[in-house]
Amino acid sequence: MAARIKTAVLGATGYSGLELARLLLRHPRLEKPVLFRRPAEIGDAADLTKIFPALSGNGGYPLQPFSWSALKADEVEVLFLATPHEVSRGLAPEAVARGVRVIDLSGAWRLKQQQHRAIYGFPDSVSAKEVTEKAVYGLPELNADRISGASLVANPGCYATSVILALAPLLAAKVIDREKGIVSDSKSGVSGAGKEPTSRTHFVSIANNLSAYSVFGHRHTGEILEQLQLNPRELIFTPHLLPIPRGILSTIYIHLNREMGPAEVQSCFQDFYVGKRWVRIFTTPTLPEIGFSLHTNYCDLGFCLADDRRRLVLISCVDNLLKGAAGQAVQNLNLMQGWQEDEGLA
Amino acid sequence: MAARIKTAVLGATGYSGLELARLLLRHPRLEKPVLFRRPAEIGDAADLTKIFPALSGNGGYPLQPFSWSALKADEVEVLFLATPHEVSRGLAPEAVARGVRVIDLSGAWRLKQQQHRAIYGFPDSVSAKEVTEKAVYGLPELNADRISGASLVANPGCYATSVILALAPLLAAKVIDREKGIVSDSKSGVSGAGKEPTSRTHFVSIANNLSAYSVFGHRHTGEILEQLQLNPRELIFTPHLLPIPRGILSTIYIHLNREMGPAEVQSCFQDFYVGKRWVRIFTTPTLPEIGFSLHTNYCDLGFCLADDRRRLVLISCVDNLLKGAAGQAVQNLNLMQGWQEDEGLA
Amino acid sequence: MAARIKTAVLGATGYSGLELARLLLRHPRLEKPVLFRRPAEIGDAADLTKIFPALSGNGGYPLQPFSWSALKADEVEVLFLATPHEVSRGLAPEAVARGVRVIDLSGAWRLKQQQHRAIYGFPDSVSAKEVTEKAVYGLPELNADRISGASLVANPGCYATSVILALAPLLAAKVIDREKGIVSDSKSGVSGAGKEPTSRTHFVSIANNLSAYSVFGHRHTGEILEQLQLNPRELIFTPHLLPIPRGILSTIYIHLNREMGPAEVQSCFQDFYVGKRWVRIFTTPTLPEIGFSLHTNYCDLGFCLADDRRRLVLISCVDNLLKGAAGQAVQNLNLMQGWQEDEGLA
Amino acid sequence: MAARIKTAVLGATGYSGLELARLLLRHPRLEKPVLFRRPAEIGDAADLTKIFPALSGNGGYPLQPFSWSALKADEVEVLFLATPHEVSRGLAPEAVARGVRVIDLSGAWRLKQQQHRAIYGFPDSVSAKEVTEKAVYGLPELNADRISGASLVANPGCYATSVILALAPLLAAKVIDREKGIVSDSKSGVSGAGKEPTSRTHFVSIANNLSAYSVFGHRHTGEILEQLQLNPRELIFTPHLLPIPRGILSTIYIHLNREMGPAEVQSCFQDFYVGKRWVRIFTTPTLPEIGFSLHTNYCDLGFCLADDRRRLVLISCVDNLLKGAAGQAVQNLNLMQGWQEDEGLA
Repeated sequence: MAARIKTAVLGATGYSGLELARLLLRHPRLEKPVLFRRPAEIGDAADLTKIFPALSGNGGYPLQPFSWSALKADEVEVLFLATPHEVSRGLAPEAVARGVRVIDLSGAWRLKQQQHRAIYGFPDSVSAKEVTEKAVYGLPELNADRISGASLVANPGCYATSVILALAPLLAAKVIDREKGIVSDSKSGVSGAGKEPTSRTHFVSIANNLSAYSVFGHRHTGEILEQLQLNPRELIFTPHLLPIPRGILSTIYIHLNREMGPAEVQSCFQDFYVGKRWVRIFTTPTLPEIGFSLHTNYCDLGFCLADDRRRLVLISCVDNLLKGAAGQAVQNLNLMQGWQEDEGLA
Repeated sequence: MAARIKTAVLGATGYSGLELARLLLRHPRLEKPVLFRRPAEIGDAADLTKIFPALSGNGGYPLQPFSWSALKADEVEVLFLATPHEVSRGLAPEAVARGVRVIDLSGAWRLKQQQHRAIYGFPDSVSAKEVTEKAVYGLPELNADRISGASLVANPGCYATSVILALAPLLAAKVIDREKGIVSDSKSGVSGAGKEPTSRTHFVSIANNLSAYSVFGHRHTGEILEQLQLNPRELIFTPHLLPIPRGILSTIYIHLNREMGPAEVQSCFQDFYVGKRWVRIFTTPTLPEIGFSLHTNYCDLGFCLADDRRRLVLISCVDNLLKGAAGQAVQNLNLMQGWQEDEGLA
Repeated sequence: MAARIKTAVLGATGYSGLELARLLLRHPRLEKPVLFRRPAEIGDAADLTKIFPALSGNGGYPLQPFSWSALKADEVEVLFLATPHEVSRGLAPEAVARGVRVIDLSGAWRLKQQQHRAIYGFPDSVSAKEVTEKAVYGLPELNADRISGASLVANPGCYATSVILALAPLLAAKVIDREKGIVSDSKSGVSGAGKEPTSRTHFVSIANNLSAYSVFGHRHTGEILEQLQLNPRELIFTPHLLPIPRGILSTIYIHLNREMGPAEVQSCFQDFYVGKRWVRIFTTPTLPEIGFSLHTNYCDLGFCLADDRRRLVLISCVDNLLKGAAGQAVQNLNLMQGWQEDEGLA
Repeated sequence: MAARIKTAVLGATGYSGLELARLLLRHPRLEKPVLFRRPAEIGDAADLTKIFPALSGNGGYPLQPFSWSALKADEVEVLFLATPHEVSRGLAPEAVARGVRVIDLSGAWRLKQQQHRAIYGFPDSVSAKEVTEKAVYGLPELNADRISGASLVANPGCYATSVILALAPLLAAKVIDREKGIVSDSKSGVSGAGKEPTSRTHFVSIANNLSAYSVFGHRHTGEILEQLQLNPRELIFTPHLLPIPRGILSTIYIHLNREMGPAEVQSCFQDFYVGKRWVRIFTTPTLPEIGFSLHTNYCDLGFCLADDRRRLVLISCVDNLLKGAAGQAVQNLNLMQGWQEDEGLA
């Protein structure tokens, strides 16, 4: 076996970052990852165990202040950014310039089109434009070839992962009546809203409740449109906040542009994802539920076809912290290193 | 004040029936209701307090075996059936024949068209056909005139209530592009699935989970189509089971057949429901959440319009046990008796 | 009927304050209460409906800045303080001096003994001492006589209510072996921890979890000791945070100093609380559950006696926002006004 | 590495059995386990994936009818029984007679004393008595020596595991004042109540609720008494049902028979469990929470000592399906085979 490589995580104290640190710690091809504190966190806990006592019992997980010199001293080859997009926006170009490959879990580098980036409010400097061009959207099932050689991988959004993987096979087969519009009614657990305590994420606000939010204005919409090459008017994407800690289920509504039978729809998905380790296609009448993919890196897909053989409901589930974030980041690492796609994830 | 009237409930041991008994017990225009056990329940608890200890402290709530003679002896004027549809199907015609007005909470008498009734598997005897014709669909905001004189009111389904009330104003205004299809992605708490313990309603199956079910095949679809006079191909209705005990949120997607502004949409709803006590219209950007209408008889409506002024997302929430069942039944009673619509519900 | 009286609430934007405002709004003996914003909240929402959209549909609930002149102009007779204890500490003496009766929901005035007050860190000025002497601990089942004439009622803590009401009958009967120690293992829903968003009240921290906190150091311990005249070493009180929004269950362990039968224990409770509207005594083997008293003002008590007739487990449940806070405050108001104890609470 | 051994699971369709099957499937020292259906399940699903679609994606997990000949044909060396105690009672003696080592997850063989077994209602045949004598209580931290050579291991109850591991160090050190009594107030997630749908495990019964049950009469009491050699009057054990799917937290109250400091208590635990891989001792003021040990095989212990240095509150948490059932069963397997205690569990 080749020597293990060295990785680092900046931002291991958030939900996605913690999940990522856990995966990297048990990845058989990696040295124990370097865990960096974000600049604003300097002075905070010196060990991840202080923040997550659930990690006790395996020695410590020291957190060190981030610096380029530390990165170099530790001979880090791949840097994971589990940071707010502003931070990723600032750090990724320099990391790439220094020859460190970057896998960024934020929305900083996912969007090529300024119209979609606008919602994030990035200043578009010349250098940023160049880096944006280089960045590869890290959805392994669609972009494996480009990910393997990428210097900067923009890890997809959690909602976007669930929606893109469900629609890609049907769009590739050109069987969707795009004129009638595509609806993705998506529901997510609360960890997707981040670890910051707010009145919205207070237990009493979430329990016994369900709410829609960011209707016609969620940041992941741009990713979905770009990756699927859809016109903005062809998609309505509505996120909802579920009273569960994690997991996403997207219910997607499409009209076919010709009649199809269930077996043909099934084949469309199975053929598209043949050999893809982390997509599971369920067979009618079994539909994926959020519970099926929790704590796994799977994207689960299922469907139900109307009697008219024209109207189709798709169900797509992911664990937002794994296939929707940290698991997919490790999957991207595996591709970048030429390893099996399930190393450290099985 | 006029003399109080006498009512009876058959099936007070289910979720809707209990909620109904509670409402009737505190309704200022009613005698204490007679609580009947269903035939199959004879021999069971002699008092509702035995089944729901939470009712303790106000004396007892005796349950008696149902019989026509008891109904007559108690001079019951209005009989509520919180029973499985087969039971309602059997009892309602005789009650009506005996001059007792019936409010049925099951799906037994909601559907006029055989194509929609088929899913219930009713035998359609001649007498049943006559009773079906007489039955009035008890959605007070749409059918108040006919409810007031009805001998048999078919209380609407919980999902149907949320969907019909959201769509009725726009359909009346003829602003929906029905060709493009209407989607109702609806989510319900578990009490909507009934009190019967099953592997599906086990706490461990529901917690941390979300699932779609009865896609293209839920019984409430027929009600929605009939009341809104939609063609089956114009609507996709998908129910989901939420990890909460009660509450429904329907997210409804429509295309307008002409451009409208937010103010015009708002007016469309407000004008349609002017003077309607139990419908609340929220103003953008506030959208209803399940928590807002819990433990109330409100149907809460809100909307979000796309920039293209063509695509519209509606949010409709009800408490499935109140506006979706028992509360609406009391609202129907109030109409039948010529009382204020909020008697016993405020 | 006598004229309705005027009340005011300071702090209606917290969980207890909102619950209180709701109760006062529907109390048949009261004018619509004046809702004051806390000083720090000036400039915030002008109407309670903005903070709690669930209140929509009944006109507005204007929030006005608190001032003594407004209090006087509105002829407020009773002022409810649903404020942090520091605020109550500052305002109550002046209100009393101005002849306004005060019902304070905070911990500011509950404790007579400096050793117990120390945990709050109050400065004990001379005037504060006088007010402390006047304050009556507002547990109606124990102190009704003194509450009726009080100018300042210190509404009990939620945990304290559940523990004191469970133990009082047995202590009065002198049947507890206090040498062996009393244990109260208490569990509360999250609204008891207040509305402030913190990492501890984040949905993801609470869901699927249970934790003990403030072991040997919770503020309510002093109230329990004072009211029951226990020595600190005779009680261990351990609070836990439950993954539910509201409700408290205390499991209390005692040793009897002589053998007793179940009927004798039952009588001990029933005799002590005879005629008390808001205490329900359950009979073995039925034990109270949190769900029984939710959304009611009841304190539910039950017990289980060991075969040795010496060891006794008590179960005591309250809704922390009602009998544990706002409901009890209204019960105190009723006593102060000479009304039935269940006015506005039934 | 030595050849992998062959194991079988009877009862993989229950919560503990499924968790066990998952662990065995990924255990590096084992062949793929044989999954037997229970006799009553014959005719049911032919593959575990049908019952738990979440297992899809790794080929099938065929379920075969149980028979002794199949057991022999498959050369099974260790049989896990995740069956009701009556079934285990019937099968274990024959398995042992046939030379197959048994790890039984039920309560069938845990109790040596007839007074404690009585609650299960076993007939005590002569042969059963012999097997009972042979059975080893499978708590690895206490009984490792005897487990390694056992032919029948009685895997402990989930509650019992949490209570025994918390008390054993203090009892061994003889520092508990047993006269004053020990209280264990224990709280469990719903999977501990089994997979059978009942009105008690219905989502609506559990959500927003907490209840005590089997006070002074829970089956695990006998195990605790026997293993800790306590007199029945020295322990009160009260289980509660939490609104979470899994996890146990026991809050245990003891009086010390002499003054101790926090450091001494800490040492008492750390010395007792030195080298024990699956017990974590937390240091005051950090107390274990249910979330810390979820999805792990840890038993987490923490404590809080009163100022009087005499009264001690212990907190003990386990995942009821892992350290409380399937994980501990694998730990026992590892001991029986002379493997590292964390093989297949890390």
